[in-house]
Amino acid sequence: MPHIKLPEGLPGIRGPMAFRPETAKPLNELAEVLLRSENSLSRGERELIATYVSSLNDCFFCQNAHGGIAQHYLQCDIHFIDEVKKDFNSTELPAKLKALLSIAASVQKGGKNVTEQQVENARSLGATDVEIHDTVLIAAAFCMFNRYVDGLGTWAPQDRQIYVDRGKTRAEEGYLSFDLYAKYGK
Amino acid sequence: MPHIKLPEGLPGIRGPMAFRPETAKPLNELAEVLLRSENSLSRGERELIATYVSSLNDCFFCQNAHGGIAQHYLQCDIHFIDEVKKDFNSTELPAKLKALLSIAASVQKGGKNVTEQQVENARSLGATDVEIHDTVLIAAAFCMFNRYVDGLGTWAPQDRQIYVDRGKTRAEEGYLSFDLYAKYGK
Repeated sequence: MPHIKLPEGLPGIRGPMAFRPETAKPLNELAEVLLRSENSLSRGERELIATYVSSLNDCFFCQNAHGGIAQHYLQCDIHFIDEVKKDFNSTELPAKLKALLSIAASVQKGGKNVTEQQVENARSLGATDVEIHDTVLIAAAFCMFNRYVDGLGTWAPQDRQIYVDRGKTRAEEGYLSFDLYAKYGK
Repeated sequence: MPHIKLPEGLPGIRGPMAFRPETAKPLNELAEVLLRSENSLSRGERELIATYVSSLNDCFFCQNAHGGIAQHYLQCDIHFIDEVKKDFNSTELPAKLKALLSIAASVQKGGKNVTEQQVENARSLGATDVEIHDTVLIAAAFCMFNRYVDGLGTWAPQDRQIYVDRGKTRAEEGYLSFDLYAKYGK
């Protein structure tokens, strides 16, 4: 049961977004810029950072919703996403992305945990300042989204396959196409 | 030293915002809606929630910048803001605001820490669903802003009086008036 009365039938963040379209607008615009706009990090890499941080925050909805999208972009299977969450260093991800995931993990604990050494390591592997900036902000933003989803006690489908099946559609929809207004007449 | 090359002379979040105006836009719009738009919670109450969460996250810039704004709106002194950070329950804040600060503290630890009992308590003291929603999202958003500011190792003036002195001006400016573009020609 959500902690407040949310529109029914909308999973995860979509309930509170329909409840409060005024805040949904900048939240969706932030997700769109961070995860889908032109960037030297691919959409798959950015969705993977979001998925990883959401798993560190133990947010079931976000890690599966964004995991499904990452999986679609990266053309991998769900086991690979699970391996990344469990221990990304043991996977065959590119070294630069591993260095960025390490920065994201530090941000999740708290911003002061990011070290000069982590940043230098990412840079030595080819990460640009924009890529480092965006990694920090994606990680920070998912510390917000995860807390928003779980702090209101939202509902989410428990069958993980649903998120896998929806990955392609959600990737194509993006974050600006949710029709938050139609159903609830706001 | 910031972890990436940021425009010089801009304290705290303003450096990364000038560096990346594409993400600054939705971030500022979110702050404006949450902290300044029409709401049954006063601007001072919302800035106080932001200040409190920023102190829990040990973010020097945010807790002082928003503390200065809260102080202006609430017409109190810096010692009162410090008392709230230290132990809001021992202050003379209204009971409803104390119940909302308790929810904000749980969100800061992680969304799942918010309990049904905390929400019921806030509601029994007069909190509406929108107020509970906004408290959760303000707390979640400052878990993002704080990580963004500290995760990039930004610089901030250490003299707390500067933030007190700037509170009134910053309250009047709001979050949409920063001219992020002029100085850096983006």
